[in-house]
Order: sequence, then structure tokens, then C-alpha cells
Amino acid sequence: MSWLDLPPGSPYGIETLPYGVFSDSPDSPRVGVRFGDQVLDLAAVAEQTGQEHADVFAQPSLNALMTLGTTRCSEIRSWVRSLFLDRSRQEIVSPHLFAVDDVEMRLPIVVADYVDFYASESHASNVGQIFRPDSPALPASWKHLPIGYHGRAGTVVVSGTDVVRPCGQRQAPTESAPTYGPSRRLDIEAEVGFVVGTPTRLGDRVSTADFGAHVFGVVLVNDWSARDIQAWEYVPLGPFLGKSFATSISPWVVPLDALAAARVAPPAQDPTPLEYLADRDPWALDLTLEVEWNGEVVARPPFASMYWTPGQQLAHLTVNGASLRTGDLYASGTVSGPERGQRGSFLELSWGGTEPFEVAGAQRTFLEDGDTVSIRALAPGADGTTVGFGAVTGTVLPAR
Amino acid sequence: MSWLDLPPGSPYGIETLPYGVFSDSPDSPRVGVRFGDQVLDLAAVAEQTGQEHADVFAQPSLNALMTLGTTRCSEIRSWVRSLFLDRSRQEIVSPHLFAVDDVEMRLPIVVADYVDFYASESHASNVGQIFRPDSPALPASWKHLPIGYHGRAGTVVVSGTDVVRPCGQRQAPTESAPTYGPSRRLDIEAEVGFVVGTPTRLGDRVSTADFGAHVFGVVLVNDWSARDIQAWEYVPLGPFLGKSFATSISPWVVPLDALAAARVAPPAQDPTPLEYLADRDPWALDLTLEVEWNGEVVARPPFASMYWTPGQQLAHLTVNGASLRTGDLYASGTVSGPERGQRGSFLELSWGGTEPFEVAGAQRTFLEDGDTVSIRALAPGADGTTVGFGAVTGTVLPAR
Repeated sequence: MSWLDLPPGSPYGIETLPYGVFSDSPDSPRVGVRFGDQVLDLAAVAEQTGQEHADVFAQPSLNALMTLGTTRCSEIRSWVRSLFLDRSRQEIVSPHLFAVDDVEMRLPIVVADYVDFYASESHASNVGQIFRPDSPALPASWKHLPIGYHGRAGTVVVSGTDVVRPCGQRQAPTESAPTYGPSRRLDIEAEVGFVVGTPTRLGDRVSTADFGAHVFGVVLVNDWSARDIQAWEYVPLGPFLGKSFATSISPWVVPLDALAAARVAPPAQDPTPLEYLADRDPWALDLTLEVEWNGEVVARPPFASMYWTPGQQLAHLTVNGASLRTGDLYASGTVSGPERGQRGSFLELSWGGTEPFEVAGAQRTFLEDGDTVSIRALAPGADGTTVGFGAVTGTVLPAR
Repeated sequence: MSWLDLPPGSPYGIETLPYGVFSDSPDSPRVGVRFGDQVLDLAAVAEQTGQEHADVFAQPSLNALMTLGTTRCSEIRSWVRSLFLDRSRQEIVSPHLFAVDDVEMRLPIVVADYVDFYASESHASNVGQIFRPDSPALPASWKHLPIGYHGRAGTVVVSGTDVVRPCGQRQAPTESAPTYGPSRRLDIEAEVGFVVGTPTRLGDRVSTADFGAHVFGVVLVNDWSARDIQAWEYVPLGPFLGKSFATSISPWVVPLDALAAARVAPPAQDPTPLEYLADRDPWALDLTLEVEWNGEVVARPPFASMYWTPGQQLAHLTVNGASLRTGDLYASGTVSGPERGQRGSFLELSWGGTEPFEVAGAQRTFLEDGDTVSIRALAPGADGTTVGFGAVTGTVLPAR
């Protein structure tokens, strides 16, 4: 029980404690931790208490903290917990608390490489049927390996960043040639992202069992997608400009330590994956996402339904010896469950734009200028608590 | 005429002057410039002469130098030229010259995002026929836009770095299911890479005319490719582990200023590209690459034959508002000309492995352990000189 009051029902209690980078006025980004609706300035508290590694909190990203490794980060989490649990710390801590609404949240990590997977069977099957109606719903390799690709690390932005409608080439079914202009099929993808803390050397492989030794924490991801640009460009080298204009992440990184109670068994895999993907201690996670479009919840994608686990994804990503860097981010791919109300993209919710649905009183398919989308998530925490993920929010601005 | 002797026929004269990052013993990476077979320690000379921005040379990458912008970098190049042209500088310069063979060359840039294009018509057509014999040789969009995708920035390595044969999933035509193991079809791709110096903000577009205002210089690239891993994984999201284990670049970055005399007219484009790709002042470049396999030259790919220019690639990359960062690297895609001896990959030279050819007395298709590949290039320089690109070399080690 903390000496600091937690608002009733808040999912940011002592079992959550996510890290982020905040700035009050004047500009001074540093590392903070969230408790309830407040942010504690860890840079100030660490310096004042002479905490070891105090310098890692005075940085404009979590990378220096994450570089310390998962064991040291677990010890630091215990220290952070003690700040809120031990009443004797109240005098030191209180002056360094800020209301969440009074600070600006920054991109929490310097993203090294960004990889996006495609791990929901419902999503891959839906997209296959919509994009490639004459082919099998799932690509031949889909159940043998977690399909993924590299995205643009430099355009990963923090929640709250406006998203300008991208321009590019697209060809409507009624057009005989591609034309240039603003995307007409701007979409979202509700995803869960994993942030690498502990790097590897070129040539090393990370086993599924070592997931927890390399991954620092979890964020929510909105992989904004221009479906018309993507459909025209993606053969044979995959998505490029249809995705690279912006990828939003939540400002709070939930440490893996906060998610022990959220671990569940993943769906059965058939065929049995090759040995390097065997996942005997899997990190499937019971997160329920919520997709809100202009204030109305339009989907609740269940992350527990994902076919491939994040441990398998990391093992696959490194099986060829590709090295990891602190700040690598890999996302799950769109989270979609088998039911319509569980689909994590508007492409799927509107079945390729052919089945408009009601949002805030209007019939909608893809995003219009001025639309705002927020993705949230909750997970079971220790001792019957609930772990909250900060929302990832963005508003669509007209094309320039 | 320099006061310093240039070895006869050296393509590293006063009109070349490429930048790199070198280290002598003990470890102390800093920026140098190549003249003949020597490297001048620019960090030392700049400090000793009180040169403005001297600190940018004392860095372990060229990024700080490149951030100064193309105008300032042109001024700096004039200063560097004066060091070799003005005999009165000999006393200051001479003590800071190292033999190229006595220093270790480092990765010259911190790679931000890495993008790889697919801009050779001969290459795309060859690969299409080999990988997709029942489909048109070129994808539908190929002549409308420069197809590209993001690669792994964290595994870009400097020439000389050994390449461990990657493991992964692959399925031979005779196999009923994928198996795990070392790649059996390890290949190269001879490419030309462009390094971004001047960044842009999210939402900005770079016109084809502004190519020279953003690109700092040019490197050679070997985009090592495991064709069997790639063939099994690449539908529908593109190459991933088949490429991400290593991408080698040459240690010397040739400034764009050195390549004015190498500009040529690109091939005619039909259909006429959309307006944002119109390239009225194109940067097609007359580089002739040379692919050497175990000491034998097996191909001479002509870069001037590329269908899409680097200016068009940059305009396309940013047309959706994707921002550029200093250190972004984008490569041309495999350079292949229309003749057999001009093909820049062994996939093409051996026609998918079906047409072995003689290399150093043996019949070969793909790479064997112990093989060494070097890619070099020459271009016309000012005043009838020749501009050399440092070789990008790598040796294949057995899978771990």
C-alpha cells in the first residue's frame, strides 16, 4: 500500500510503474515513472538520494537505463517501488511529482531498428482474403515462421503527434494508371511493441527462453497504413511508403517485470514449429486492446490470441545472426481476434471498404481528416491488480 | 599538382579525396581523407591549424561532419584540397599521414535508416524470370515507381568484416517442408549506396532537384543475400532474414562534389513518371563496378544503366512525408547491365543456380565457405582524372 493515494480504478498502481520520458516547461526531457495520474521525476530523486546509475535518468531517452541490462533494471524497479511504498520517502519524493496533464511526454526510446511482424492468424487471413481473393488466405510460410519486415525507425513518433495524411502513388480499380495524391484509404493497425534493452553481437542467436534477458518492456503501437499506396507498391519487396510516414507508440514503456501475471498459454501451433522456434516457457500475454475512433470504441482485439509469441519472434529475428541493439523495437503486427468486434484495423472492420460501419453516428470505412484514434490496453497485474498501458493517440491532418 | 606524390594510375588523387574513419593503434577512431595510398588524419591537422569545426573530425563517424550541410562540406573540401595543393602545408600535413595498410578502417557512418531499392531493369527482369517464371518479368508497378524496402541498419558493416553464413528456414524444391540449417544459396548484390547528410522534418518532401542538397556522398554496397531463405520468407512482406544478417559498405565515402564529371543522362523512361519523379537535372552516374570472386573478375556492372536515378529514389522515399536523418543510407539495388558479364549477383550469373560458371578454375554457382568477394568501382573525375571507390570486401565463414 503506497503512501500516495491511487485514484480508484487506476491501472497505474504499484504493480505497473511504467517508465517514460517527460518534459515540463522549460524544455528538459528526463526519465519519469507513472503512478496514478502523476509522474515522478526519477532524475531528480536519483540525484538527490545518490542512487547508483543516477545519470541514466537524466537522459532524454530510456536507452541508457535499458543498457544496464534486465537484472540491474529489476533492482532499479525495486528501488522505484520503495519510493512509493516507504512512507519515509514521502518528503523526498513529493516535491518531484508532476500531474500527467502538466507535462509533455516524449518519444521514450531512441529507436534503433524497427521490425513489424504479422502474427495474428485472424488478421493475416482477413488481409489475405481482402488483398488476394484468388489465393490461399495465408501465405505458404505463414504457419512455419513469424513473417516480418523492417519498417522506418526514423518515423516512429510518440503518442499525440499529429499524422499528416500521406501522398503517394495509388491506383484505384477504376483507374487505368496510377495517380499521385493523398491516400484515400488511410488506416490504423493496433499492435503491441517490444523494446530491446540488452544487445547482442553480430552472429549471436537469442533463444526463445532468453526473451526476458533481452526485452526491457512493452509499448502500444499504431502502425498507420495507407492501404492504397501499400496495395500498389508492395509486390515483391513488401510495404514501404504505405507505412513509413508515421508509426506511433505509447509514451509509457511497461517493464516486462510488471507482466508476469499476464502470461498465458499461446494458441496451439500446427504444424509444430522447427526446433529453434520451440517455446517451452512462452511469453504469450493476456492484453486486451481497445481501439477508440472519435471517442467510440470500435474494437477490442485480444492479444492472447496471437499465433506467434514475442519470444518466437525474437528467436526468429536473430536466427540468422542479426545483432540486436538497445532500442530495437519490434511490433506484433495487427492484433485481430476471430470476431468482427476484435479486428485491429479498419481494413478488416470494413472488409476492404465494402462494409461501412457506424462510428459516432456516421457510416465509415477509412480515416477522414480530423479523425482521432486512440489505442489502449489493460492486462492482469500482480495481486489482482490491473496493469495499464498509456494510450497511443493520433489525429489525422489534411495532406500538405 | 600536389606536393605529395601520387602513385601512377592511382584513382585517389586531388579530385577524389574520399572521407573515412580510421584507427591506428591504440584504438582511436577519427576522420581521415585518402590521398593515393595514404590517409591524412584530419582530426590532428584541423586541431593544429585551428580549423573551424575541428571537432567534427575527432569523431568516430562522419555524421557530425555531414550534419554541417552540403555548402559547408564543400568549403571543407576546398580546405582539404588546399592541404595537398599548397606546398607550404607540407610541414603541418606530413607528420599526420599514415599508410592505408597501417590503419584499420571503421564503419564510416552511424547508419540511421537503411533502404534498398530495386532500380536496375536488367536485374529486376532477371530475378522476376528466375523467382516467378509464370508471371511477367517486371512487377506491375516497376516502371511507375522505384520499388524499395527497409533493411536492417544495425547490421550494416564495414568492408573487411567476415560474413558468417546465416542459418534459417529454407525449402528446396525436392523438400515437402521447410528445414532449418545454413543457407545453401548464399549470394552477393553489387550496389551503389547514397549517404544522407542534411536531414528533413517529418512531413517534408525532397524534390529530385534537391538531391545534392541532402546527399553527402557515395559508397559501394554488398547486399549479401541468402536466396533460399529469401525465397521462402518474402511473400507478402518482402525480404527479411535473407538479407538482415549483413550488408557491407566500403570504408571510403566519396563526396558528391567529386562526381560532377561522372554525371550522365539516364536511360529514357517509358511511361513518363508522375510529376514528382520528373528528373530534369538527373544524377545518373557513370560508375563501372567490378565484382571480383576469389581474385577473378566475374562481372563489370554499369551503374549508368540504372533505370531509376538516385534523385528519383530520394524523391520517392520522401513523397509521403517520411523524414530523413543524417546517416540515412539508401542503396540502388543490384546493378546489372543487359549483358551476362554485367550481372551484379551470382543468382543472375548462374541463372538461379542452373548455369554454373568457371571461377578460378572451378565450376561455381553460389558462395562457398572461405570465398572472398570484392566490389570496386571507378568513375570519371574532373580534368580527365579517375575517381576510385574503396573496395567493399568480405570473406564467407562457415555457419556457427
